[in-house]
Amino acid sequence: MYSEPIARALESGGISSGDVVLFESEKQRVEGELMPKTEVGRPDTLVIKLGNGYNVGVRYAKGAKLKLVKKGTGVPKFPVADAKSKQGLPKVTLVYIGGTIGSKIDYKTGGVHMLIKPGELLYEVPELAEIANLEIKNPFSIDSADISYYEWQTVAKEVASAFGGGARGVVITMGTDAMHYTSAALSFMLKDLNGPVVITGAQRSSDRGSSDAFFNLKCAVKLAAESDIGEIGICMHRTSSDDECMLTRGTRARKMHTSRRDAFRPINDRPIAFVDEKLRIRYNSDYSKAVDRKEARTTSHTKFEPKVALIQSHPNFDPEIIDLYARKGYRGIIIEGTGLGNIPGSTQHKDMLWMSHLEGAMKKGIVIGMTSQCLYGRVNSNVYRLLRLISNLGVVYCEDMLPETALVKLSWLLGNHTPEEARRMLPVQIAREIKDRSETDEFLV
Amino acid sequence: MYSEPIARALESGGISSGDVVLFESEKQRVEGELMPKTEVGRPDTLVIKLGNGYNVGVRYAKGAKLKLVKKGTGVPKFPVADAKSKQGLPKVTLVYIGGTIGSKIDYKTGGVHMLIKPGELLYEVPELAEIANLEIKNPFSIDSADISYYEWQTVAKEVASAFGGGARGVVITMGTDAMHYTSAALSFMLKDLNGPVVITGAQRSSDRGSSDAFFNLKCAVKLAAESDIGEIGICMHRTSSDDECMLTRGTRARKMHTSRRDAFRPINDRPIAFVDEKLRIRYNSDYSKAVDRKEARTTSHTKFEPKVALIQSHPNFDPEIIDLYARKGYRGIIIEGTGLGNIPGSTQHKDMLWMSHLEGAMKKGIVIGMTSQCLYGRVNSNVYRLLRLISNLGVVYCEDMLPETALVKLSWLLGNHTPEEARRMLPVQIAREIKDRSETDEFLV
Repeated sequence: MYSEPIARALESGGISSGDVVLFESEKQRVEGELMPKTEVGRPDTLVIKLGNGYNVGVRYAKGAKLKLVKKGTGVPKFPVADAKSKQGLPKVTLVYIGGTIGSKIDYKTGGVHMLIKPGELLYEVPELAEIANLEIKNPFSIDSADISYYEWQTVAKEVASAFGGGARGVVITMGTDAMHYTSAALSFMLKDLNGPVVITGAQRSSDRGSSDAFFNLKCAVKLAAESDIGEIGICMHRTSSDDECMLTRGTRARKMHTSRRDAFRPINDRPIAFVDEKLRIRYNSDYSKAVDRKEARTTSHTKFEPKVALIQSHPNFDPEIIDLYARKGYRGIIIEGTGLGNIPGSTQHKDMLWMSHLEGAMKKGIVIGMTSQCLYGRVNSNVYRLLRLISNLGVVYCEDMLPETALVKLSWLLGNHTPEEARRMLPVQIAREIKDRSETDEFLV
Repeated sequence: MYSEPIARALESGGISSGDVVLFESEKQRVEGELMPKTEVGRPDTLVIKLGNGYNVGVRYAKGAKLKLVKKGTGVPKFPVADAKSKQGLPKVTLVYIGGTIGSKIDYKTGGVHMLIKPGELLYEVPELAEIANLEIKNPFSIDSADISYYEWQTVAKEVASAFGGGARGVVITMGTDAMHYTSAALSFMLKDLNGPVVITGAQRSSDRGSSDAFFNLKCAVKLAAESDIGEIGICMHRTSSDDECMLTRGTRARKMHTSRRDAFRPINDRPIAFVDEKLRIRYNSDYSKAVDRKEARTTSHTKFEPKVALIQSHPNFDPEIIDLYARKGYRGIIIEGTGLGNIPGSTQHKDMLWMSHLEGAMKKGIVIGMTSQCLYGRVNSNVYRLLRLISNLGVVYCEDMLPETALVKLSWLLGNHTPEEARRMLPVQIAREIKDRSETDEFLV
């Protein structure tokens, strides 16, 4: 809600958001498009978009004036290109589920407009029409941080249905926050991929000049259209310059920076492939090939048990927290242990001992997996006596699997298998989330 | 307990652990020192230490034979060197609190022998006598994963007392698992450092040829004896070769690999200094200088509130967990949000909405801080609408501070200040745990 003086000025001037206005106060003179009021803005402040695209907030204090310069058009315009791709290009299904990558701000409503018409998208990234015959789906739009297994189930079914409908590859665009949880979930939910499934997004809004959105998208569509990969991967910038993208395995990727364009890194793994400025694909490591659709069709297996906890072990941790999860009906716990997979286990401070709490949880049938908060490297219960005791108790050491991937995997396993089977399958490779041997060039890359 | 056949063979042969034995079965012939039985070993298996130092486990199956070759000496021998340092060398206090760095296996008992006599340590690392006049303290020994604020309080007091007693610098040796939590805790607990406080340890046991223990220790003692640094740092290998060590700021270090010797990395920061093979110190970035003891003496401020939780936000997280912490009397929560500091906040799945749970916790006086699970980069509540809402609610965005450092800092703040003061101080730099500007060369280094 605006303050009363502003509300009055708007009413008397016949001004509404979207109009071009001139604001004048003792200190400032600002002309531009009046942005809609947002719920978090101060009541005494107007937001005006300048000609250069930046927004400024101006305080409507005593003596300020607001004039209408020009009424807004009322309807936002998003230019549209001829949506025809070249004939004979591979069919790629683009599944939009949110994020800034395929969106523009609708200045009229302050909301986000999704570029879900092929023509709108092709206006922004005309090169796509040279690469693939795009089909665009938008089952829902969501802030990536809000995504849950409900959405994963929908996306997995979309992917299976796209391959069933003849797509050569699938591109999924979304926000980056929970992208690697999503790529891991799809890696377990989808079997017999008939083509590449490439997830992409942007760290910078596609309205900004420095945006990585369109280069990421071009590289992703290229991989989906032409590569013979049969895995789920994340395609984002390799470095902070706009000259190469990198495809990282879905079960091995992690967002390692809050804002850099090259935030997504492979952990305990090598990138699968690179795509350079000229959209040339270079394969970098071993990968699973797409399954010929004559042999098998892509299927989705989307059952999921959300009651799985992720607990980071640290000094002063109160292990009664484990009992709380048990009482809430949790069926799995992934521990992010210290070092090789350690927890406070032999301390003289009885209130910090984990062992009996873990034992109690396992007696209730809860499956417990051990990963490392170091992220890089491999848990190993054979090096120290205490770790052998933890392992002998029944805690499953998850090799070189990422904690987040282990969380998603255990949830998926408990949705589709008995706890005993889930326990047995947790440390065994299903979707390249675990490997026997670590390479020295996989640290901090 | 050994199986009956083994127990009988030992009794009839007059064999006990520490003796040299010859084991023969159909498949194997192994000679070496019989290791003590451990509680986790299989009952039908003997562990024999070979001449090369490696242990092998041999299965005592039907037809196996065990012969006494030579009785053990009964008493383990740890060689001792002349413990005299050169005259006029700076005094360095070495505080041993555990870890493999200053320990040897006592083959008689299977236990760990701490090299806490200067002569024993100088036998292993004679170069130390050329660098400093060492005083060794061993207030306790603990597995690093077991360390808690009780031990941190003891160590902080030891450090203050060492400087009070005229030490030029202090070296702390410990296990690596919770080393960076410990370095962060000491960084907040100690004020006016009269010299460098260097924490070191080993990723490989000092009994092994590939151990990093002694090079780390030499570099640490060198820094403590000669540098003018007035900060807590972690001194470990810079790369996986044995040719340079790196001093990483205590509030910025993180163990990033389960087993590599160069596991400790600076996050959102540059290393303070390097020490090369010839023990030459090279300063690499800005640091705080030691305080002249005429101006101020080092003091320790060790109060601590352990009831602070670390919660990683992820898809499918049940926010009722926040209520459980509130009911258990927690006074602080650090969230490891996704991306720029995000949580599931606007999803349509009501059971996954965090907002009302955070609000309830804050109404109870719980201080909540936001960090990023990306680790690298900076949280920022100004970029997205939802993040502004979270921040407006009262959640404190913790800039570029590591989640683990934020956990330790909030515990320390709540031990020494009112909740309102703690809330205000959480995002403000105290011990170089936060800085205004991020550099591009601080990512994955």
